[in-house]
Amino acid sequence: MQNGFEKVVYTPIGIVASSFNEPGDPKSLRNAESVLVIDEKYTGALDGLDRYKFILVIYHIDRSPGYRERVHPMGELSIPERGVLATRSPCRPNPIGITVAEILSMQGNKIRVAGLDALSGTPILDIKPYEEHFDSPAGIEREREPGYRPSDL
Amino acid sequence: MQNGFEKVVYTPIGIVASSFNEPGDPKSLRNAESVLVIDEKYTGALDGLDRYKFILVIYHIDRSPGYRERVHPMGELSIPERGVLATRSPCRPNPIGITVAEILSMQGNKIRVAGLDALSGTPILDIKPYEEHFDSPAGIEREREPGYRPSDL
Repeated sequence: MQNGFEKVVYTPIGIVASSFNEPGDPKSLRNAESVLVIDEKYTGALDGLDRYKFILVIYHIDRSPGYRERVHPMGELSIPERGVLATRSPCRPNPIGITVAEILSMQGNKIRVAGLDALSGTPILDIKPYEEHFDSPAGIEREREPGYRPSDL
Repeated sequence: MQNGFEKVVYTPIGIVASSFNEPGDPKSLRNAESVLVIDEKYTGALDGLDRYKFILVIYHIDRSPGYRERVHPMGELSIPERGVLATRSPCRPNPIGITVAEILSMQGNKIRVAGLDALSGTPILDIKPYEEHFDSPAGIEREREPGYRPSDL
């Protein structure tokens, strides 16, 4: 059990570039385009990503206000507070953000996306192809079918 | 730009407990039940999570074989190698795993789930309610509708 609480250290693989430098309207942020500028040493590791339309972007919320045990969901005071792990608030123990983004274009180490709700300068920790098999409730059901194998390779 | 490459340090919030201690058949692993044992100091932060049926579990793949630029998807030699970031392979620069899991029951700091493909002892970094708004391609489209606001609070 103790082993689970050893610290984990990651080095970002890139950074978000967009015109949003500070928190504002979440809807505008998410509707804007961003560029994921990936460290050039990982350009080869991106090979083949262009076959996907959607990716998961995993990022470090570097401007998180810090941990709070309870928050109002979406910052809406009209909604009763609940535990932060039962919300998408940035005030989580480990401020990791995850969003599904749409690939608009890719060139070398740069990926232009829509749908990302991260500020400019946000460190990117990982990028994964979105696969319904792993990333949706439907995938859990399908995995229970005998002989099912994911086809979206 | 440099700022993006500062190391990020996380302390796991809990650990996976299951009967799977080493890699094996991914299908059996995912169909098994696991218990997410969360650090007791975060029990309050879990309050309200039981309103959700599905959660994202974000974990550190502590038994990753290490970084490889290119891999065969799903380890299938019949599928040509591609960049690791275009796969769900554990051999990524930062071995972060993400799966949607189904909550079967919750009690205090323990969450019994199905659908998780993580080995026993895996450190858990974060838990988020699954929200179609952020976690599915459909959410990106919907966010573009004027006046749309997520209802699944």
